[in-house]
Amino acid sequence: MRQVAILGIGQTKIDEHWDYSLRELAGLAALEALQDAGLQRVDSLFVGNMLSGMVSGQNQLGTLVADWVGLRGVEATKIEAACGSGAAAFRSALIAVASGEVETALVVGVEKMTDKAGHDVTSALATAADADYEVEQGVSFVGLNALIMRRYMHEYGWQHSDFAAFSINAHANAVHNPNARLQFAISAEDYSKAGMVASPINLLDASPIGDGAAAAVVVPAERVAGTPLRPRILVAGSGAATDTLAVHSRRRPLFLDAAQASAKQVYAQSGLGPADLDLFELHDAFSIMAALSLEACGFAEPGQGPRLALDHAISPKGPLPICTRGGLKARGHPVGATGMYQIVEVVQQLRGECGENQVAGARVGMAQNIGGSGATVITHILKSG
Amino acid sequence: MRQVAILGIGQTKIDEHWDYSLRELAGLAALEALQDAGLQRVDSLFVGNMLSGMVSGQNQLGTLVADWVGLRGVEATKIEAACGSGAAAFRSALIAVASGEVETALVVGVEKMTDKAGHDVTSALATAADADYEVEQGVSFVGLNALIMRRYMHEYGWQHSDFAAFSINAHANAVHNPNARLQFAISAEDYSKAGMVASPINLLDASPIGDGAAAAVVVPAERVAGTPLRPRILVAGSGAATDTLAVHSRRRPLFLDAAQASAKQVYAQSGLGPADLDLFELHDAFSIMAALSLEACGFAEPGQGPRLALDHAISPKGPLPICTRGGLKARGHPVGATGMYQIVEVVQQLRGECGENQVAGARVGMAQNIGGSGATVITHILKSG
Repeated sequence: MRQVAILGIGQTKIDEHWDYSLRELAGLAALEALQDAGLQRVDSLFVGNMLSGMVSGQNQLGTLVADWVGLRGVEATKIEAACGSGAAAFRSALIAVASGEVETALVVGVEKMTDKAGHDVTSALATAADADYEVEQGVSFVGLNALIMRRYMHEYGWQHSDFAAFSINAHANAVHNPNARLQFAISAEDYSKAGMVASPINLLDASPIGDGAAAAVVVPAERVAGTPLRPRILVAGSGAATDTLAVHSRRRPLFLDAAQASAKQVYAQSGLGPADLDLFELHDAFSIMAALSLEACGFAEPGQGPRLALDHAISPKGPLPICTRGGLKARGHPVGATGMYQIVEVVQQLRGECGENQVAGARVGMAQNIGGSGATVITHILKSG
Repeated sequence: MRQVAILGIGQTKIDEHWDYSLRELAGLAALEALQDAGLQRVDSLFVGNMLSGMVSGQNQLGTLVADWVGLRGVEATKIEAACGSGAAAFRSALIAVASGEVETALVVGVEKMTDKAGHDVTSALATAADADYEVEQGVSFVGLNALIMRRYMHEYGWQHSDFAAFSINAHANAVHNPNARLQFAISAEDYSKAGMVASPINLLDASPIGDGAAAAVVVPAERVAGTPLRPRILVAGSGAATDTLAVHSRRRPLFLDAAQASAKQVYAQSGLGPADLDLFELHDAFSIMAALSLEACGFAEPGQGPRLALDHAISPKGPLPICTRGGLKARGHPVGATGMYQIVEVVQQLRGECGENQVAGARVGMAQNIGGSGATVITHILKSG
């Protein structure tokens, strides 16, 4: 299949957008991406979304957004993989363009969570877990992650305070991201005093929900010429793998097998490895997930992820910058849109457009988007060239 | 891209399946399709489903089903396009196999509608329409179709009784389909006396909901050899197009532009036209939709669809058999699964496995699956050869 490039990107601020409807949010990001790409029309639209049916009473969102952004008539596909929906939609678009089925595709990840017409958001988010064998027992999604974090601390001997560095880094980076939901820095003391959500996960371990949309236009690489001011952004690898939804069914519940499998796929496709990455936008829905992602992708031994944060390896000037625009923790986590925010942020880094957050000389970046507690994992490596 | 063949199929009876959970239903069809294909494993799974989040409190269904059917770890993708979800998932699988991204793919359409943990089904189905501009006004999905049917009767001078032949044909065919929900024949008198749902749509104009799953295994055509007893089933064309969700926004609300556009795509790809089709599994969610589909796909002039039914052209021995296993009307309409039932039924016809419903010498069949009131339309032509 042919190589694919990202020609344009767009995003909204993540916020409580009472002034924009679901379709309007998607449209803001989509039209910005089309304008950035210099295109008025594409052959196909892919939308990543998790909750519009439950929260906004709206399904068939691919077709709705296609009409709204001036693409009436084009094929439109909506992909859902819980919090992994955004990158799953991106991957479907890649396959469509790489295969030659279409020449140009627009991908939009969108989620509207703060003004609900239907379900409350906590019960809606629980649909990412196993309804029959987890949720039926009364566990919420944050509760599941709390169980993982508690066991991890027990198995590997970490204290809760050892996870503070993940959240401190994310918040420090979000200060300079105008699209972040939480544009403020936090201290270790703030972290230790934060209100408890589901022990040991407190408010500063958990990513905030929000309304937002992020979008990208993908085209065959041969259609794109790079310039010194704006390099060509290529998709060097795209991988996806799955695991059980129910955490208790896994052989090793403290290791993200699907994250490892999809990372191995993109390393093999790209010929690049952990040491080649200039940044990594990972899925820190909770601080424990940042640790587990780093371990699954080969940056730390199992149980040693927090060490990278404590050593400041993950800061913008460290050897492995993560969450460079705030991550899920501080940029915000509009669930079905998050995967596309990660893609957009890696593109911004490779273009050198990140100002105070810029990773110097960034040429290669990875984005990893996770649905459920490690159940559906989609990983991409982007590079300039 | 390379040609794709359908190697195996599976389906459950459409019913109130209180004894099977959502994943179990999907598994029944999926495992039957794998067995029929002679495969134990595939590279990728595609699931079409509309309502599992709202009705069963379960999202991320691709990954859940992958694990349940013994495919833990493989990539799994869930596609949603309202009632068009099944064929949309099938089309995504085709692209993945045709492109070479994967060698083998399993597609499952599944819906569980009769034992709800969450939303009531009428409000859940309304999410196929435009939440802000249609549903907000209080219209239900059947109400929208009633408005279309009323206007159609007014514009073209048809009586309600002129639509009876669609339902009579569907029910007559369902008698011989062991997987149909409503395995009984109806008369014109039954039709005229049926209880009103949303005038002029009565109970015998409307398809019944139900629980069900249908599945297929797709592989590169070069992997399949046909035999006299079991011909090779090829995908000769696959097309998709969209329209506005809101019916009132359409240039001509009585014509299915997206159905026409996607049919034109498959005619062009296959080199086949309306006259070459031995059967057509269309999306008769309501009798008016059968008429509109026939018109959009070139079998009748606008406003003349009912004539084909009145002339018995659509019966199994007529020139254009439709709904040969009962259609949505009598086989049943488990919304996100329906598109896969259509595919499975066309395969059964091309294999000559339909017994009393067999269309003699069937070599070419078309399936058209519609999301919303003509908003997302996916059309396929299958042929033996």
